[in-house]
Amino acid sequence: MTSRDIRLRIILSPETLIGSGKADLLEGIRDTGSIAAAGRAMGMSYKRAWYLLDTLNQSFGEPIVTTSKGGRNGGGAQLTATGLAVLEAFRRVETITIRAVAEEFAQLAPLMKPPDH
Amino acid sequence: MTSRDIRLRIILSPETLIGSGKADLLEGIRDTGSIAAAGRAMGMSYKRAWYLLDTLNQSFGEPIVTTSKGGRNGGGAQLTATGLAVLEAFRRVETITIRAVAEEFAQLAPLMKPPDH
Repeated sequence: MTSRDIRLRIILSPETLIGSGKADLLEGIRDTGSIAAAGRAMGMSYKRAWYLLDTLNQSFGEPIVTTSKGGRNGGGAQLTATGLAVLEAFRRVETITIRAVAEEFAQLAPLMKPPDH
Repeated sequence: MTSRDIRLRIILSPETLIGSGKADLLEGIRDTGSIAAAGRAMGMSYKRAWYLLDTLNQSFGEPIVTTSKGGRNGGGAQLTATGLAVLEAFRRVETITIRAVAEEFAQLAPLMKPPDH
C-alpha cells in the first residue's frame, strides 16, 4: 500500500476541506517554491492551483501559502508554518490509514481476483 | 469527528475500489435487505446502485451481494460473508482514520476560522 492506494478527504469544518489533491499541491510548493511548477507537475492549471490555495487560505485564520514578487529568482511561493503543519498532519493521517488498510484487508486480499492477463 | 467528516476511497487493486459511497450502499442492503431501498435512502437510482454492486462483485473472487426473487417478501438482497467482511474492514479503517484526524489536527483546530454568522 502507498499513498496512491487511498484517496482521503478530511472535512475539518464546513468550509475547510483538505484532500490528497490539496496535500500534493502543498507538497509541490514546499519542494519547488512555485505555485505554477507545483500545479504543472500535477497537470493542473495555474488558475486551478490558485483557486485551491485560496480556499485553504480563507479557511484558516492565517495564510497557508505566501507569495513574493520579483527579486533575483522572480518571486515565488512558500508554505507558512501553518501550511507546513497542515500538510504534515494530513500526511500522518494518510500513513495511519494506509497501515490500517493493510491490516484490516489482509485477510480479504486472497479473495480478490487477480488482474486479467 | 464522525464518518461524515471524512471521505475515504481505498484502491485495493486496479479493479477493486471501495469508498464511503459503496460502504454506505452495502450497509443499506445489510439493514434493509433491498438494493432499491438502500439506493433510495442515498438518493441513488436502482441502476446506479446495481452498477456499483456489479463492479464490487466482479472485483472479488466471490459475490459480495446475492439476490433472490419471489417468495413471500418478493425477493431481496443479502450481503454474503465476504460482503460483510469487506464492509466491516472498511468501517474499521474509517474509525481509525477519524481518530487519527482528531489527534493530528487537534493543534490546528484553534486556527480555523469559525463559520460566518
